[in-house]
Amino acid sequence: MVDVELALLRSLVRTGLAPPDAETDADADAGSIDIGALGVSSGERGTPVPALVRTLGDQLAEQSARFLHRGATSQDIVDTAIMLVARRALDPLLADLGSAAGVCARLAEEHRASLQPARTLLQQAVPSTFGLKAAGWLVALDSARSALAHIGQRDLAVQLGGAAGTLAALGERGLEVTAELARELGLAQPVLPWHTIRLLPARLACELAAGLGAMAKIARDVILLAQTEVAELSEGAPEGHGGSSTMPQKRNPVKPIAVVACAQRAPGLAATILSSMAQEHERAAGGWQAEWEPLLELLRLCGSAASSLHELLDRLEIHPDRMRANLNLTGGLLMSESVAAVLAEYIGRSRAQELVEAAARRVGEDGRELGDVLLELPEIAATVDRQTLKRALSPENYLGVADRLIDRALAAHRDRGSK
Amino acid sequence: MVDVELALLRSLVRTGLAPPDAETDADADAGSIDIGALGVSSGERGTPVPALVRTLGDQLAEQSARFLHRGATSQDIVDTAIMLVARRALDPLLADLGSAAGVCARLAEEHRASLQPARTLLQQAVPSTFGLKAAGWLVALDSARSALAHIGQRDLAVQLGGAAGTLAALGERGLEVTAELARELGLAQPVLPWHTIRLLPARLACELAAGLGAMAKIARDVILLAQTEVAELSEGAPEGHGGSSTMPQKRNPVKPIAVVACAQRAPGLAATILSSMAQEHERAAGGWQAEWEPLLELLRLCGSAASSLHELLDRLEIHPDRMRANLNLTGGLLMSESVAAVLAEYIGRSRAQELVEAAARRVGEDGRELGDVLLELPEIAATVDRQTLKRALSPENYLGVADRLIDRALAAHRDRGSK
Amino acid sequence: MVDVELALLRSLVRTGLAPPDAETDADADAGSIDIGALGVSSGERGTPVPALVRTLGDQLAEQSARFLHRGATSQDIVDTAIMLVARRALDPLLADLGSAAGVCARLAEEHRASLQPARTLLQQAVPSTFGLKAAGWLVALDSARSALAHIGQRDLAVQLGGAAGTLAALGERGLEVTAELARELGLAQPVLPWHTIRLLPARLACELAAGLGAMAKIARDVILLAQTEVAELSEGAPEGHGGSSTMPQKRNPVKPIAVVACAQRAPGLAATILSSMAQEHERAAGGWQAEWEPLLELLRLCGSAASSLHELLDRLEIHPDRMRANLNLTGGLLMSESVAAVLAEYIGRSRAQELVEAAARRVGEDGRELGDVLLELPEIAATVDRQTLKRALSPENYLGVADRLIDRALAAHRDRGSK
Amino acid sequence: MVDVELALLRSLVRTGLAPPDAETDADADAGSIDIGALGVSSGERGTPVPALVRTLGDQLAEQSARFLHRGATSQDIVDTAIMLVARRALDPLLADLGSAAGVCARLAEEHRASLQPARTLLQQAVPSTFGLKAAGWLVALDSARSALAHIGQRDLAVQLGGAAGTLAALGERGLEVTAELARELGLAQPVLPWHTIRLLPARLACELAAGLGAMAKIARDVILLAQTEVAELSEGAPEGHGGSSTMPQKRNPVKPIAVVACAQRAPGLAATILSSMAQEHERAAGGWQAEWEPLLELLRLCGSAASSLHELLDRLEIHPDRMRANLNLTGGLLMSESVAAVLAEYIGRSRAQELVEAAARRVGEDGRELGDVLLELPEIAATVDRQTLKRALSPENYLGVADRLIDRALAAHRDRGSK
Repeated sequence: MVDVELALLRSLVRTGLAPPDAETDADADAGSIDIGALGVSSGERGTPVPALVRTLGDQLAEQSARFLHRGATSQDIVDTAIMLVARRALDPLLADLGSAAGVCARLAEEHRASLQPARTLLQQAVPSTFGLKAAGWLVALDSARSALAHIGQRDLAVQLGGAAGTLAALGERGLEVTAELARELGLAQPVLPWHTIRLLPARLACELAAGLGAMAKIARDVILLAQTEVAELSEGAPEGHGGSSTMPQKRNPVKPIAVVACAQRAPGLAATILSSMAQEHERAAGGWQAEWEPLLELLRLCGSAASSLHELLDRLEIHPDRMRANLNLTGGLLMSESVAAVLAEYIGRSRAQELVEAAARRVGEDGRELGDVLLELPEIAATVDRQTLKRALSPENYLGVADRLIDRALAAHRDRGSK
Repeated sequence: MVDVELALLRSLVRTGLAPPDAETDADADAGSIDIGALGVSSGERGTPVPALVRTLGDQLAEQSARFLHRGATSQDIVDTAIMLVARRALDPLLADLGSAAGVCARLAEEHRASLQPARTLLQQAVPSTFGLKAAGWLVALDSARSALAHIGQRDLAVQLGGAAGTLAALGERGLEVTAELARELGLAQPVLPWHTIRLLPARLACELAAGLGAMAKIARDVILLAQTEVAELSEGAPEGHGGSSTMPQKRNPVKPIAVVACAQRAPGLAATILSSMAQEHERAAGGWQAEWEPLLELLRLCGSAASSLHELLDRLEIHPDRMRANLNLTGGLLMSESVAAVLAEYIGRSRAQELVEAAARRVGEDGRELGDVLLELPEIAATVDRQTLKRALSPENYLGVADRLIDRALAAHRDRGSK
Repeated sequence: MVDVELALLRSLVRTGLAPPDAETDADADAGSIDIGALGVSSGERGTPVPALVRTLGDQLAEQSARFLHRGATSQDIVDTAIMLVARRALDPLLADLGSAAGVCARLAEEHRASLQPARTLLQQAVPSTFGLKAAGWLVALDSARSALAHIGQRDLAVQLGGAAGTLAALGERGLEVTAELARELGLAQPVLPWHTIRLLPARLACELAAGLGAMAKIARDVILLAQTEVAELSEGAPEGHGGSSTMPQKRNPVKPIAVVACAQRAPGLAATILSSMAQEHERAAGGWQAEWEPLLELLRLCGSAASSLHELLDRLEIHPDRMRANLNLTGGLLMSESVAAVLAEYIGRSRAQELVEAAARRVGEDGRELGDVLLELPEIAATVDRQTLKRALSPENYLGVADRLIDRALAAHRDRGSK
Repeated sequence: MVDVELALLRSLVRTGLAPPDAETDADADAGSIDIGALGVSSGERGTPVPALVRTLGDQLAEQSARFLHRGATSQDIVDTAIMLVARRALDPLLADLGSAAGVCARLAEEHRASLQPARTLLQQAVPSTFGLKAAGWLVALDSARSALAHIGQRDLAVQLGGAAGTLAALGERGLEVTAELARELGLAQPVLPWHTIRLLPARLACELAAGLGAMAKIARDVILLAQTEVAELSEGAPEGHGGSSTMPQKRNPVKPIAVVACAQRAPGLAATILSSMAQEHERAAGGWQAEWEPLLELLRLCGSAASSLHELLDRLEIHPDRMRANLNLTGGLLMSESVAAVLAEYIGRSRAQELVEAAARRVGEDGRELGDVLLELPEIAATVDRQTLKRALSPENYLGVADRLIDRALAAHRDRGSK
């Protein structure tokens, strides 16, 4: 808010609405402001700005103090300040999302051949690769990052409307001051003051929440894959993190849990901002004031989650041997779809289906796998050679276009990066 | 869903994965499908698709039925179908938003000179114009419309991943089928199957909710301006609408209330979709299934609100005389800021402030207005001529850049329209 | 958390699980704990408790430190601490709600005869009294207060389950320690440890949100009645509060806006806690951690709103003359229902309705009121005497059971108070 | 709504406000009402009630039709009808919750000795039993059921306020009609008409959402325990349910996913109702209308989830052998806390901790378990006898008060049942 008030003062000087000497000492000391006192005054006046202007004025020379806040209303200062905070918060957030995406790109490339069971409804379904899973994470992070970067670079806009949106106290020069203020602060200039047109905070909130949702998907995958019984990933925490001295077997997935916990709070906060949009006339009686904390909280949660996710991915330990072992847990049943398709070429689709289903029911008896059961069937033994059947039972041969999909994700990632 | 299954069948034929005669009778009759039976089966299987495929297969010739749904999973059909529904629902929705914006543009132009008190925190603040208020509505509607149009034209994407995202059942041709399916349905082709990358439904939901918020702001303004005690607008309902036979004075603002009621439900629905984003592995166990109804509901609510808003604006009755009368309710106090600024030029800023505040406290005594009280002060009478004071007390002269702001809103509106 | 750890230590001593000298210096200094360091450690371990135990142990004698936290898990400490905070926060909150209800009871009694237009859909409907409106506020506050008091006195329960809910580290004495800890802290003893049975925080959150909703209804009524054009209530703020030096006519409704702004945030926070209930197995990976801040925030918001509401009601200025003036704004149309009912006794229901509707359409012509128009009708003049008509047009005579309803609300209020 | 209008008619007769012959044919046929026509009229009037009254009146004799809806406003009919729907929906819902709780009670009793790893943060922590897990489910269901039963029996209240809450159109008899109507419909009589006091729908919504959260916790546990890699539970679906013909190994947990999907939608719906509580004056302009569908939807979702949960628990297959096998996955590391406690008695707490931690790091080398590693240590071999160590390593001996907790849960369940 201090930065906004001082930028406004400079803008008034530039547009001739304040004398040149008004900004000489415009570098007031925000650090020395008594935040508690602002809070008390905010309780009495419904806004922290009047007390801030008074305090700030005391720090400035008289010729500057007189022009401080000229032409502005409290909402101009608060809204613009939140936009500034958003832009500043987005920098590290975007950097973390970018680094996290970079790790995902590396994992996608390196683990093209790390076979892993794909799981739908938390049941093993068909074979896939950890590379493709990482490619999915990559696409999500790239999309989240790019949407937030777009908002940061193009949408965050200065607010200046004066008492009620006409900028009347600045006479004919209101729009020039707005333009100057936007330039000063590196924010966009809106078509109109947006005192009660709240699409900007709503969209920022939604995109932060969507980004948190994208991160939570990755974190939840890691948590599930780090389960004691699955053990395909582990957090690779530094000494002392996530451990339990009394339960040494535990490798608590601290970082992904932090990501999930942050994301868990986002929908409610975004909903609060969305539900505050129907703001009355030229300044809302409650709806606007309710936006402040949720929006700042969303920035904090999204930044925190991005940092945790980056750290998590950076030190993620991947266990391809365990992925492969889990792939074999069901005695080849994961390959039923594949083998039925191959058999169909020899004995017709519906007969193939029938035989595979019957065989599947016997998998596990005496430890037999699907291939063993099928080979015992005379009908199969007579028509399909062992080698063909073996190929149809190899997960490597039933990965569809997994590799081409990884290529697409990596290409899209490079494209975004080069922009 | 029927359209998706049939488009998939045609795509299989085009890519050589089904024989040319498979699509001969591809125009199955969606109307004859027993929806109740799909529901029962959906309760048993967790998805309506297997029953749909069976029913649909019965309608097709055997050579087509055999290839129906080939390579797809239930989620492919449901997700793509929801995208199709979204695109179809967006057409009338965007038309209504466009028409509503058109009315706002007209109102902004026509009511540049309709003075109206600007209200902040529901208190009269300073003068403004109804034209500027309409310009604010216009900017909001244009922005909402343009974001939704962008999603409709560029983002809505086909879903095709097969059992778990690798498209394995389509061998090497999975991506070609996807491309063909996208072309068939007029939807975008995603980088990857987005089974558990849910940014697309999340963003669609958020933008629908934001659009509803923008509409609710307008509707709430209308409801407040239509209050018995304010009476600056009325709904202009056709005979029988919004009236009450036993309370003939009532002009119930039926349409704006409908808009507010629709919008009221949006944040919770958007939050549901945002909170479902952390979808497990390759298909979620609950999160995905929870999206279906809220997303369709948001489309319905947003379309309904846009239609109500369009209708409301179309027949809105504006009462500039009453706006002007309300402007005078406070005996000129609305002009305090203006008059203090003018007096400052004669007697200095702080003295001017003092006199105006003192005078303001006496407004209303014996029906006196601010001008009367000020003129009785010898200090004023001696330094400021009556004409200057009168000008400073005229709301017309304290509208700031209201007109230029209207110009900007109209120009931006034309710009969007020409794209 | 310090209080919980020390109470646990005392409970271990009482149940013989720690030696008597373990609690000698159990009054450690919570104030000297480095909160920032707890935060850092919390980021690394996912919980602030291990660092707290270390820090606290350093403050205690060795024989006490050794038994600190014995048998507990981090969640036991955090959950119990939040329950303690809740109980402490509820005290002033309930006092404020009680005082606010007290003011409403006084207003209901004092304003039985303060006629005011009832407004439905923000249109004047029929006459009512400000006393009845205050009685409605009273019923809402009493109900909110009583539900929160019930939770505070009966439901807030200690959490103690040890590593995973079996209390294994306390051998056979786990339940005795739990009972002792509950007694120490004045909290209830749950049937089972509720690590992942989250009905208690969910219900607390919901009832706080419902209480905020009830307060927001009152605040919104005040804001609407304080509008410049309505002016039936004003905040009666002390000098300097809610005023605007440049816009002296403004009496910003600061306190009711604060109430609305607090309440606006509650649904999203409650939804976050509700959406975190599906907690995995014996400790959640994200859902539990997401509860902490929203629950504390709800306590803060509800307490803050109750304080603002109490203050607002305490100094509320009521303007019965203005209520009466507004009642007359529509030229008697508010009495159409009443007058039609009386006329029905003379000329039949449907004819009465017809005449009143026709007359209503002419109200306002040449300033005529409903009574004037009706009396000009020969059919009326011939059948109904002037006095009867006048009575049917008097708002005082069309208040139904308003007074008996006030009696009921006051009686219910006294009943609750005496419990 | 038909039932409410007819009950109102009967109440008017009973209180002498309508002639005795008015209710002769009060059994109008709700089934023949054209719902679509009500919808159209609802769009025009903002409420379905006027059209309903007209339609219903056409079905009644003239002497009845004349008194239909007398004294009521649309909101009276809609609110009371929703309360009726709630009471009717609660019957099967409570029955399903009761049956589900009954199954949990049986499982808790039967599986006292079914050892299972307790899992915190989705990592195996210490031993517990499936019986204790089921006891936790039981406590949650009992609590949810009992709160909803309480609302159903005591809180659901009739709404009757007339045009604006004074019941003026019923003269002096308004409260008698209300009492009669409540009696007729088996609903409670409120202190005041609650047109804009919305605590009742808010609390009903919250308790439905909390109940859904409690059910989702159970469902999520089942889904996690049914994972291919965990396999401790399975849904035991009838032939054809949850299976996949092409992936025969899949046992899709259809019912628990349905429960989770229902619950996922509850927080947003409850938030919508909470956020609609600040209803203006004597009838809200949007907030009330927004409640209708979310409240009915919550009843539907909660009922549907309870039915699915009941069905799921009824046919749940439990695999204690697999629980035991999973308990052994970590080579005894789950017993570290237990064994360190026992060793502490021989060699002191801190030395015991040290040795166990060191040993834990070597578990898994050459397939060795914790007991093997410890016994190789001379310090242990010298001080602790083999039998003692073995006992300390047996999960059976480290269950704390699991059995007593089950007893408490079962006793509380019986207590509730006997009330």
